[in-house]
Amino acid sequence: MSSATLILSCTDRKGLVAKISQFLYQRDANIIDLDEHVDKNEKMFFIRIEWELNGKANLTDEFIGEFKKLADEIGANWEIKPNENKKRLAIFVSKYDHCLLEILWRYSNNELHAEIPLIISNHPDLEHVARQYAIPYYCFPITKENKREQEEKELELLKEHRIDTVILARYMQILTPRFIAAYPNNIINIHHSFLPAFIGADPYKKAYERGVKLIGATSHYVTEELDEGPIIEQDVIRISHKDSLKDLIRKGRDLERLVLARAVDLHVNNRVLQYGKKTIIFE
Amino acid sequence: MSSATLILSCTDRKGLVAKISQFLYQRDANIIDLDEHVDKNEKMFFIRIEWELNGKANLTDEFIGEFKKLADEIGANWEIKPNENKKRLAIFVSKYDHCLLEILWRYSNNELHAEIPLIISNHPDLEHVARQYAIPYYCFPITKENKREQEEKELELLKEHRIDTVILARYMQILTPRFIAAYPNNIINIHHSFLPAFIGADPYKKAYERGVKLIGATSHYVTEELDEGPIIEQDVIRISHKDSLKDLIRKGRDLERLVLARAVDLHVNNRVLQYGKKTIIFE
Amino acid sequence: MSSATLILSCTDRKGLVAKISQFLYQRDANIIDLDEHVDKNEKMFFIRIEWELNGKANLTDEFIGEFKKLADEIGANWEIKPNENKKRLAIFVSKYDHCLLEILWRYSNNELHAEIPLIISNHPDLEHVARQYAIPYYCFPITKENKREQEEKELELLKEHRIDTVILARYMQILTPRFIAAYPNNIINIHHSFLPAFIGADPYKKAYERGVKLIGATSHYVTEELDEGPIIEQDVIRISHKDSLKDLIRKGRDLERLVLARAVDLHVNNRVLQYGKKTIIFE
Amino acid sequence: MSSATLILSCTDRKGLVAKISQFLYQRDANIIDLDEHVDKNEKMFFIRIEWELNGKANLTDEFIGEFKKLADEIGANWEIKPNENKKRLAIFVSKYDHCLLEILWRYSNNELHAEIPLIISNHPDLEHVARQYAIPYYCFPITKENKREQEEKELELLKEHRIDTVILARYMQILTPRFIAAYPNNIINIHHSFLPAFIGADPYKKAYERGVKLIGATSHYVTEELDEGPIIEQDVIRISHKDSLKDLIRKGRDLERLVLARAVDLHVNNRVLQYGKKTIIFE
Repeated sequence: MSSATLILSCTDRKGLVAKISQFLYQRDANIIDLDEHVDKNEKMFFIRIEWELNGKANLTDEFIGEFKKLADEIGANWEIKPNENKKRLAIFVSKYDHCLLEILWRYSNNELHAEIPLIISNHPDLEHVARQYAIPYYCFPITKENKREQEEKELELLKEHRIDTVILARYMQILTPRFIAAYPNNIINIHHSFLPAFIGADPYKKAYERGVKLIGATSHYVTEELDEGPIIEQDVIRISHKDSLKDLIRKGRDLERLVLARAVDLHVNNRVLQYGKKTIIFE
Repeated sequence: MSSATLILSCTDRKGLVAKISQFLYQRDANIIDLDEHVDKNEKMFFIRIEWELNGKANLTDEFIGEFKKLADEIGANWEIKPNENKKRLAIFVSKYDHCLLEILWRYSNNELHAEIPLIISNHPDLEHVARQYAIPYYCFPITKENKREQEEKELELLKEHRIDTVILARYMQILTPRFIAAYPNNIINIHHSFLPAFIGADPYKKAYERGVKLIGATSHYVTEELDEGPIIEQDVIRISHKDSLKDLIRKGRDLERLVLARAVDLHVNNRVLQYGKKTIIFE
Repeated sequence: MSSATLILSCTDRKGLVAKISQFLYQRDANIIDLDEHVDKNEKMFFIRIEWELNGKANLTDEFIGEFKKLADEIGANWEIKPNENKKRLAIFVSKYDHCLLEILWRYSNNELHAEIPLIISNHPDLEHVARQYAIPYYCFPITKENKREQEEKELELLKEHRIDTVILARYMQILTPRFIAAYPNNIINIHHSFLPAFIGADPYKKAYERGVKLIGATSHYVTEELDEGPIIEQDVIRISHKDSLKDLIRKGRDLERLVLARAVDLHVNNRVLQYGKKTIIFE
Repeated sequence: MSSATLILSCTDRKGLVAKISQFLYQRDANIIDLDEHVDKNEKMFFIRIEWELNGKANLTDEFIGEFKKLADEIGANWEIKPNENKKRLAIFVSKYDHCLLEILWRYSNNELHAEIPLIISNHPDLEHVARQYAIPYYCFPITKENKREQEEKELELLKEHRIDTVILARYMQILTPRFIAAYPNNIINIHHSFLPAFIGADPYKKAYERGVKLIGATSHYVTEELDEGPIIEQDVIRISHKDSLKDLIRKGRDLERLVLARAVDLHVNNRVLQYGKKTIIFE
């Protein structure tokens, strides 16, 4: 049976769960999953509900219209999505293949609830990978001079393919504010460090030189401030003085792959709610 | 402001969240925390709700009586507890002090939401620890012959001190079925292995001989079957061929302490729901 | 510059490091890496040395002959391998592709110091993967009746391709003792549990039913006793009551891939020394 | 039988292991443990050797004199220490007791190979802990005006008690360069973040505001640059949006305790070699 997901946030007050669950119950909805969170400091209420679509619980105009009334009443930000509608992802890559392969393997294995209509790169190197998975590959070489113009073409292509979310799978270009503004809260990056440690270029080199005993990877939403967007997922792995810089890069690759894959999985299943500089993860 | 916690389980059906949250809303309760889980295989519904006690939401006989009606209607198992009422714990120890010290340190640091009216041991060795924390220490030496008789005395003492939960902090005696039956779902043990690996005696020795690369600790409720009760918390730590049996024991101690402390913390905050051989952990 | 690796074990006694390092120094060898371990219980000495091959330190018959004298004198088991000589691996698979893909990705990425001349399966399903990587794929369907016969053909094929080590990448057949005897200490398996928990079939189902809070994967050498061979590498991942059996299988796949890949990496770089039921890992 | 430990570093060249192990062998030393590391980038050689003291292998003036000749010849930094000689530690604390208690528990449990002749604090709060363990407690309240003067008194006291190493167990004062210079490479701090993330004050608050998914703790040697000294040990723990700042502080305490305890353990067993801004850990 098909289902839908509501994600909602508003100022906390009494009776919010009752109001929302009552709304669904009156429409005969069967709630499959409900997760709520109250941030007591900020006095904010967050909820995610999944229910089976059936009869009056279907996402008709009437249903949506009535829910809008309820949401307006409580001053909420909200989104309701039918879970059949897979998010449409564009993967951006440069020359490293590990994050791309990880996502494509999960995709081809029906593990990733998403569509991947295209791959975009600033280099031709990974076209053979795209071909293996029969996904169109577009190459837009980037220079200082043509960046703006190339991004325009990319944005057009994304629009054409009705892309919801851009995944930067070790894409080695910094996007312009204009590009970022076109996909608010919908560009996911993987940074090869435990943020906020080692922001910017060459984090493994910096980690090596600092002599840390663990290295990390961080997947986050992209905002205008470099590596400062809301964090979705992080993980670390132990290293030692025996590890050369090359070893760090090799060990880090496994982290990058898994951390990005987990973040993308959470995102496409509508399990991430961005709130200020942070995320609420409904697991 | 004081608060209460409901833990409830029943066969899953439509409208359960609505029904329960509506009940609370109608009594002006402010829900602080709500966590629900549906086991689709078993078609079971589990929920934990915490709300502020105030006015009609107080735990009066009327409130409880009316909730009982609702619960009977849906055929639920349930418990409502005022969070002020701290659980009363009896710590059982033998000669090892690390788990006892960990719990007492958290207790004295106001980190453990519980009362510890007494410590019981089959050896006199740790009496000085009890004295440091000004907690009565009772010693009941156990032999094959006197076990039943000594347990009777212990049970009497527990009754007298209105003990809710028994914590076996590396207590090196197997309790009789009679004792276990007196505290159903309320005896917590720490086993020094990653269960179900290395059930029974000498798990570190067995782990050493098997050559595992990680050792673990498991905190679980005690049932009649040795080391087979519902697991509350587990964790592991990496070891290598360089570690002697003595090193395993030393490294394992840190795990045992933390895993038991986390399990006790979850239990005293009514965050564990036992269901068959498993637990639902409302974190 | 090319290099060689010595792995040696013998009864512990005074002067072993001096004797062996002196032997190399007298031949002008530059030691790149040395790791020794003494098991005080067993009074055993273990050492791994890597040195640059050059001049008198080359692996000539004279060098080997003289080292043999030294080794005989101290009653040692030993192996000296030129590091240029990559181990030749045969990957055995059934229908799951994740472990195979992980190894092939590392292989194609020049991350795995090995040759993979062939893939063997009891099913035709993964032939397309082999084709992508241009590796010959041989299919030997197995029934109770033909197992012995098919294994004979497989062994012949392995011999023909001068295979050193067999990797069971979720190969769903139990090998006969005869097959195992043909590759002593050179068959590596990945078991989808934290051994010795959940030996045998369906470990995820057993883990799900037992209600463990962590699941694991174990890579080990294959011996005649099922899942009892020396462990090379293990790891675990946290799960919760929210995870269905399907979730366990999905999360476990990531563990299986990484644990097997790390074990294979250690093995092909001559970093594993089997000793009784255990391994010494020279990292 | 008693033993000694050599820690040595020098520019890498051929025959170093042979030369050093030969030196010991000629004096009938039985090597218990040997760990060497070559940093190929820096062309540096590092070694730690433990051997049994007996006959000619004893640390006589002659032995030391002859080893000095060898060391001079290869231009090495080195230290030889009899393992009987426990390092003498002074613990510095302020008001938090968790790190202090962790160290004292291990100390009283004979798990820490060290002497703790005194505890120094800038507050009187933890005197009762010191009294429980019968260790002298000295209180030196610090103001901007008297810092220099108080440190002088502390240094005198340390000298009097022949202290080798100062452990800052959440000591909430920044030491002056003069104090730091008095104990080069021998002051160990615990910082409550995963350095280099969240340097300086209030790391948990910063972590909370940044919305990280893991928090950490770092134990390092103190140098003049705040939180920039060589790292000995680090670890992390997973958190979520459900954790308040108070939860972070509580969860972090367990990390701080264990990370500091592990770092102190490595240090007192002469298993840490500082090299530039990094450490070599001989485990």
